[in-house]
Amino acid sequence: MSSEPPPSSSASVDDLAADLSAAATLTPAAAADGTTAKEDPFASHYGDVPIEEIQSKAVSGRSWTKVGDLDEGAAGRTVLVRGAAQAIRPVSKKMAFVVLRHSMSTVQCVLVASAEAGVSTQMVKFATVLSKESIVDVEGVVSLPKQSLKATTQQVEIQVGKIYCINRAIQTLPINLEDAARSEAELEKAEQAGEKLACVGQDTRLNYRTIDLRTPSNQAVLRIHTSILHKFREFLLSKDFVGIHTPKLIARSSEGGAAVFKLLYNGHPACLAQSPQLYKQMAICGGFEHVFKVGPIFRAKNSETHKHLCEFVGLDAEMEIKEHYFEVCDIIDGLFVSIFKHLTTNCKKKLETINGQYPFEPLKYLEKTLKLTYKEGIQMLKEAGTKIEHMGDLNTKAEKNVGRLVREKYDTDFFILYCYPLAVRPFYVMPCEEIISGAQRIHTPELLAKRGSECGIDVNTISAYIESFSYGAPPHGGFGVGLERVVMLFCALNNIRKTSMFPRDPQRLVP
Amino acid sequence: MSSEPPPSSSASVDDLAADLSAAATLTPAAAADGTTAKEDPFASHYGDVPIEEIQSKAVSGRSWTKVGDLDEGAAGRTVLVRGAAQAIRPVSKKMAFVVLRHSMSTVQCVLVASAEAGVSTQMVKFATVLSKESIVDVEGVVSLPKQSLKATTQQVEIQVGKIYCINRAIQTLPINLEDAARSEAELEKAEQAGEKLACVGQDTRLNYRTIDLRTPSNQAVLRIHTSILHKFREFLLSKDFVGIHTPKLIARSSEGGAAVFKLLYNGHPACLAQSPQLYKQMAICGGFEHVFKVGPIFRAKNSETHKHLCEFVGLDAEMEIKEHYFEVCDIIDGLFVSIFKHLTTNCKKKLETINGQYPFEPLKYLEKTLKLTYKEGIQMLKEAGTKIEHMGDLNTKAEKNVGRLVREKYDTDFFILYCYPLAVRPFYVMPCEEIISGAQRIHTPELLAKRGSECGIDVNTISAYIESFSYGAPPHGGFGVGLERVVMLFCALNNIRKTSMFPRDPQRLVP
Repeated sequence: MSSEPPPSSSASVDDLAADLSAAATLTPAAAADGTTAKEDPFASHYGDVPIEEIQSKAVSGRSWTKVGDLDEGAAGRTVLVRGAAQAIRPVSKKMAFVVLRHSMSTVQCVLVASAEAGVSTQMVKFATVLSKESIVDVEGVVSLPKQSLKATTQQVEIQVGKIYCINRAIQTLPINLEDAARSEAELEKAEQAGEKLACVGQDTRLNYRTIDLRTPSNQAVLRIHTSILHKFREFLLSKDFVGIHTPKLIARSSEGGAAVFKLLYNGHPACLAQSPQLYKQMAICGGFEHVFKVGPIFRAKNSETHKHLCEFVGLDAEMEIKEHYFEVCDIIDGLFVSIFKHLTTNCKKKLETINGQYPFEPLKYLEKTLKLTYKEGIQMLKEAGTKIEHMGDLNTKAEKNVGRLVREKYDTDFFILYCYPLAVRPFYVMPCEEIISGAQRIHTPELLAKRGSECGIDVNTISAYIESFSYGAPPHGGFGVGLERVVMLFCALNNIRKTSMFPRDPQRLVP
Repeated sequence: MSSEPPPSSSASVDDLAADLSAAATLTPAAAADGTTAKEDPFASHYGDVPIEEIQSKAVSGRSWTKVGDLDEGAAGRTVLVRGAAQAIRPVSKKMAFVVLRHSMSTVQCVLVASAEAGVSTQMVKFATVLSKESIVDVEGVVSLPKQSLKATTQQVEIQVGKIYCINRAIQTLPINLEDAARSEAELEKAEQAGEKLACVGQDTRLNYRTIDLRTPSNQAVLRIHTSILHKFREFLLSKDFVGIHTPKLIARSSEGGAAVFKLLYNGHPACLAQSPQLYKQMAICGGFEHVFKVGPIFRAKNSETHKHLCEFVGLDAEMEIKEHYFEVCDIIDGLFVSIFKHLTTNCKKKLETINGQYPFEPLKYLEKTLKLTYKEGIQMLKEAGTKIEHMGDLNTKAEKNVGRLVREKYDTDFFILYCYPLAVRPFYVMPCEEIISGAQRIHTPELLAKRGSECGIDVNTISAYIESFSYGAPPHGGFGVGLERVVMLFCALNNIRKTSMFPRDPQRLVP
C-alpha cells in the first residue's frame, strides 16, 4: 500500500461493488461534503485503499501494532493498527470517534480536525460515514483518555492522524453485532425501563454466523475449544498415548440403521462413521497400547434437540488394561480434572466474557474425582424419597437427581458412576448429565461375535473388525466424549449450537 | 485374575473358540505330554486365564512392568510383564525361549524346567505350543544374558517363573509378522544366497492391517504422525492461532464435480468437504485473526496412484495478512523448519527404525527456508539445458528437476517457489515435489463472485460464503498440506498407503 491512495482507484473498486451501492455513494468521502479531494490539503491522510494495493505486490516495511497489545506504556508513540470499525460516533463536524476491534480487543480512536494533526473536516466526515464492520487502518498517537472508556483497551485511545478503509462492509448488516452481544439481563433491564431492545434469535445468528462469531462470548466459547483440546492432547501425550486417525468413510454395515449417513463409495455402499470405536480398538490390536483420536463424528438424527448435533467433534481414547476398567477411570479422572483446572486458571478472562452474556456458575469438581457405584446412586435417590425401579437404567430425570444429591453431599458436579447393572454400560461419568461414556471392551472374537448376534448385528458385515481379535488382542477399554458437550456443560450454555462454529443439525447444512 | 487359573475354566474358554480348534487342542498344555495337570506340582504356574477373570471384577494389586522399561538396573528383580508372544523357540523338553513384544520393545523370556524355579516340563511344553502373537503374562526374574540377543531389550532377559495366556491368537496367522517386517535388502541378500524368503505385498498387508501395524517400521511411521501434529499445533498455538473445527458435511455445490462424495442430508443434496477452505476463510471473517484446522479431507478420485488417498488428514491454516503473502511464507518457514528439527532431534530412534526396513536419506533443509521466484526456477532449468515453455506451469518432471538443481546449488530439499505466473498459484513449497500450497485469498465479494463465475462456478450455490466478505473481511491468506504427504516425503516412502493407519483409496474401504 502506498501512503497516497489516488481517488480514481477508489472509484474503480466501487465500480465493482454493484450490490454495495449504498456504501459506494459515500466515497470519496469529500464528495458528500460538497468539496473535492483536490481542495483538501490532507486528502492523502484518508481514503479507500484500492484492492490492487493489497495484492501481495509490495512490502512497505511498516509495522502494525495489535489492538490487544496497546497499553499505557505505548502512550505518546505513533502506532498503526488494523481492525473492524465496530462503532462510529460523530460528535460534530470537527470531531468523531471510531471504535476499532481486532480479535477480542477494542480501542477508541479519536478524530479531531486541526491543521496541526493533519486532519481535515472532510477526513472526519470520511470516518463518520464508514459502514460499520469495515476493515480500517488507523495511524495515530497513543494517548491516555480523560475519562474511562467502553473499549476493552480502556487505558488508552488513539489520536488519529491517518485513516484508510481496507475493505468496506455493506452499509446495512443483516444483524447488528451490538444486538447479538446483548445479555438476557440487559434485555430484561431495558424492558423494565419500558425500552425495547432488539435481540437476535438463535437461527438468525447461525444464518449470519460470520457476524455472530464476532461477539465477545462467541470468540471466548470457540477459543475454549482450543484450550480443552490442547489439554486433552497434552495430558494423554504425557501418558504416552499415540494420536491416531481413523477413517470416517467405512463400509456400510447392517448395524447402521436410520442414524447413519449413507453414500456410495466408488459404487459400493458406504457410510460415515458414527464413532471411531471399531478402529481405535483395531489400533490397540495393532500394537499401539493406548491411543487417542480427535475427529468428526456423524449422526444422522432426525429430531431437533438442544443437545444433539449431526456432526460433532469426538474426543476418544482407548487403552490396554490389565485387569479392570478402573484403569480407564484413573485416566478419565486425571484428564478431566487437568482440563477443568486449566480452564479455571488459564481461561479466566474468556470465562468471564461468556459469563457476561450467558451467566453461569462455575463447574464444581474435586482434586480426586468421586467414584460411586450404581447401587450407591440408587440408595441416595431412595433416601431422598425418589421412587425408582431397582435395576433399571437411570433416566435423564433420575440422572439429574443423582447429580443434584451428589452436589449437595459431596460438593461436586463431576463424578464417576460405575458398576451399572447388566454390564451394558459398565461405567460413565457425568457432570449433571452424562457426558462421557466408556467401558472395558470385549477382546475375544467368539464373545464379540456372540454379543454382536445378540444385538441383532450381521457379524459378516464387520468381519474384518471381529477377525482382528483372533490375531492376538490384549484386554482393553476406553471412553468417548463430545467436545461440544464438554464446552456446553462447563459453561452451562443452553444450546449446543452455541458451542459449534458452524453447527449441523437436522435442518441446518449452511453456512 | 487369581494366581491359580483352574484348568476347567481354560477348557470353557476354548469351548467358545469354535474356529480356534487348532489352538484349542493344545490346552491344557500338559495333556499333549501324556500327563495331566493334576500330576504337575507347578500346574498353577501356567495356563490359560479364563476371560471371566479379566472382566473388571477385581483389582489384584499386582504391578506390571513395561517391556520397554526393562534395563540392567532391573537385574535380580521379579517382574510381571504382559506382551505378545512374537517368537517361540523350543530348545529341548526342558528349555524354551519366548520373545515377548509390547509396543515397540521386545524381551527374551527363558523357561528352564527345574523344581527350584517352579517350572515343570509340562510348563515348558505349554509355552512352546502357544500360538504366535498370543497375549501372555510372564512373571520372572530379570537377568543379564550371557550373549547378545535379538530382542530390542538386549541388556536383559527374564527367567520365567510363571506364564499365563491372556488371549490366544489363532494358530496360523494370515500374515507372518517377521515376513512383514523384512527389508528389501534382506530379501535381496537371501535371494543372492539362493534362499527364498516370503515377502508380504502391499494389498495383503492392508487386508490384515492389525497384524501389519505391529511391524517396527509401521509403529514408527504412525507415531511420527503424532510428532508432526504435535509440533504443528504447538508452533501455531505459540503464534496465537486458534484451532477450529469446520463442517465436513456441506451443501452440495456445482463446483463439486466427479471428485466429490455426494450424499443426502435429511433429504437435501449434500457432499463431503474436499477442503476446509471456505470455512477457514469464514472463520477469518468471523474475527479469529489466524486459525488452524486438522481434520479429514475427502476426495472421490477414481484413479489409483502411489500418492493419493480418498481420505486424508489435512493440516490447514489461514491468517490475516497486512500486505503480502510473504507473511504466510514466514509462518510456513518457521513451522516446517521447527517440525523438521523436532523430527530430526526427537524422533531419531523412530527414523532409524523406518530406515531399517525402508532405507532413506534424511531430508535436507535450511535454518531459514530458501525462497526463489518462479523466474529464478525457470532460469536454473534453462541454464541446466532444460527446454521449458516460458510462462507455463511447471509439470511434475520440471518440478523434480528444479528440486534437484536447488539441492545441488543450495543443499536443501525444502524451499519456497513463489511469484507464479497468472497469480493462479502465487506460491508453493516443495521438498522435491509440491507438498504445500497456499496463497493470498480474495477478500472482496465482488472480485470473488467474478472469479468464481470465470471458473465456471454457480455462485448462487456458495452465496453464504461470498456474502461473508460483504460484512467486513480483512485481507488474508493461508496454506494447506496433507499430513500423510509430509510423512511420505520426509521418510521417502514409496507409497502413501504406508503412512495411513487404515488407508482409503478407490478400491479400498476395509478394514
